[in-house]
Amino acid sequence: MFAVIMAGGSGTRFWPASRERLPKQFLKITGECTLFEETIRRIQPLVEESHIYVVVNRNHADLTRRYLAGSRAKMLVEPAARNTAACIGLAALHVSRRGPNQPMIACPSDHFIGDNDCFLSALRTAAELARSGAIVTIGIQPERPETGYGYIEMGSESGCILGRSYNRIERFVEKPDRQTATRYLAEGRHLWNSGIFVFTAETILREIEEHLPALYHGLQEIGNSIGSIRHQDVVEQVYGTLIPISIDYGIMEQTRAVVYAIRADFSWSDVGTWRALYDLRSRDKDEHRNVLLGDAIATHAQRNLVYSSTNRLVALLGVEDLLVVDTPDALLVGHLEHSQDVRCLHERLRRDGRTEVC
Amino acid sequence: MFAVIMAGGSGTRFWPASRERLPKQFLKITGECTLFEETIRRIQPLVEESHIYVVVNRNHADLTRRYLAGSRAKMLVEPAARNTAACIGLAALHVSRRGPNQPMIACPSDHFIGDNDCFLSALRTAAELARSGAIVTIGIQPERPETGYGYIEMGSESGCILGRSYNRIERFVEKPDRQTATRYLAEGRHLWNSGIFVFTAETILREIEEHLPALYHGLQEIGNSIGSIRHQDVVEQVYGTLIPISIDYGIMEQTRAVVYAIRADFSWSDVGTWRALYDLRSRDKDEHRNVLLGDAIATHAQRNLVYSSTNRLVALLGVEDLLVVDTPDALLVGHLEHSQDVRCLHERLRRDGRTEVC
Repeated sequence: MFAVIMAGGSGTRFWPASRERLPKQFLKITGECTLFEETIRRIQPLVEESHIYVVVNRNHADLTRRYLAGSRAKMLVEPAARNTAACIGLAALHVSRRGPNQPMIACPSDHFIGDNDCFLSALRTAAELARSGAIVTIGIQPERPETGYGYIEMGSESGCILGRSYNRIERFVEKPDRQTATRYLAEGRHLWNSGIFVFTAETILREIEEHLPALYHGLQEIGNSIGSIRHQDVVEQVYGTLIPISIDYGIMEQTRAVVYAIRADFSWSDVGTWRALYDLRSRDKDEHRNVLLGDAIATHAQRNLVYSSTNRLVALLGVEDLLVVDTPDALLVGHLEHSQDVRCLHERLRRDGRTEVC
Repeated sequence: MFAVIMAGGSGTRFWPASRERLPKQFLKITGECTLFEETIRRIQPLVEESHIYVVVNRNHADLTRRYLAGSRAKMLVEPAARNTAACIGLAALHVSRRGPNQPMIACPSDHFIGDNDCFLSALRTAAELARSGAIVTIGIQPERPETGYGYIEMGSESGCILGRSYNRIERFVEKPDRQTATRYLAEGRHLWNSGIFVFTAETILREIEEHLPALYHGLQEIGNSIGSIRHQDVVEQVYGTLIPISIDYGIMEQTRAVVYAIRADFSWSDVGTWRALYDLRSRDKDEHRNVLLGDAIATHAQRNLVYSSTNRLVALLGVEDLLVVDTPDALLVGHLEHSQDVRCLHERLRRDGRTEVC
């Protein structure tokens, strides 16, 4: 079995903790380890180390190399960010030379998974289904009418393998509006799209050929150069020209292949915003539901998230629902409900040429 | 004419900008200069430099000495904080040897005065009245039912001197409750007690003798040693034993002397809290009424006060009515309406042995 760990994210939504040089997957926001380290460790009982491909942006290649020191996992460097279809396609080129019909797990490097055993069990089932040429995804039972996630609509066809049931998927749907998300929640036929997929390299490359022929053509050029002296040059020349499209939009929403979903029985979060992190760290909340990560004290304060990467004292006084992120050169004080806007703030600072985003 | 500048405050209410080693009067919170420097400069057109006495706590003697370098103003060092009656009494001992019947202005070193010319004009009138043995205070027209200030109740007797009217005072009243303060505001017979007084050294020492005999006795002991080799030893031994009482409570609320008030025609603030500073700096407010003192940007944010003594970027996102004070070793994020509680927070940190209060 193979795995491709997608670690190309730029992580603007966790500014100022995340930076251009240090995106979210390299932050220790959910525990003692970085999300990246947790992702690698989680997959290792299932996938032999040398079968793990880590795809990273060139800006983070050195950092990633340090994390992988002593590991036989392979690193693939993207000269430019080109979204998940290109990223998975690139890894599939390499996997197809070693095991074109072996299951290949594609998963993000910056998500939270609550139970590793359940996670691995779901992937084992997914891998069995993928061997037959199907595309398999892990679906998450919605807890709320979330508008920030894509959804998958399950059909009536279902089965059972390795003691675990699965459903045929009717279709993938993009982030819905609030009303639609509420309906999905009521109907019970929709799952959140976790962005974790299992397929064979052959299957996904065939899908790319069918639905994204230009991308396929570029990938072929890169694939043909693997092993040759000019490979790096070809990657340099071609990768940046590939269409930047997500695997969800480019393939999953278009495919006519058989797609199955396995319902996750583990807690999951894409940790997409500071607000999501606050929700996730409920075990760390004090009696007033403050999550204080760092040297912080709270007085008459409730439901705040403090994340500090300095050794300064942070004192909260009479405040509620705040996000305080303290770093050596930048401080963010925001309302937790404005977590989505951190991205826009980051964009503004970048446009202004502020070095604090780097 | 003489002046005593009371600079013994510990300034816990402006933590973390103010520290035990750097109280409020030494902060540049209202403009380019410290409140202490502004106080000295303000009085200089009226009082010859060598007639200015600055009373400071021993913890701030070195700092004060640096500010007074090159000046002929005299510094009196308190071995311990003993409130304003002892502070004024100590200065009066020195003044009484040079001009016992000359007006002596006693004023805090950490207040804001909006118009220096008006301030000096009011003091000139006060000084004329004080020569006759009266106690004179500057009263501030109340703008709101403030419960944080003492009040003075004016009587019907009034006069005019140097083209300016004054009123006899019926009584001094301590900080009232909200209901009483509202009534004062409606009745129009009350002024805020600015804590600025003018009297002769002879008058105030006689008042101390009458109403605070133990304090008077201690002061006499100190006074008798002035000029002798053992003076510092006497101050060391005696000052700490003096009763720590305010001039307002110990003398003004008890006195049977004639007390006059001159109504200030300048804007004034005791800058007693971060909230008061926010109000004061209205000229610095941006279009969303944020006061951003330091390298700060605000997005979807209004009515916030940022005070930074670091060169870090402070970013506000979607927050309102907040106080953000950024210093190298401590950060305060509070609600502006909880400004009064900064004192309690400081006390808690001090009890916990946190070095960030030092």
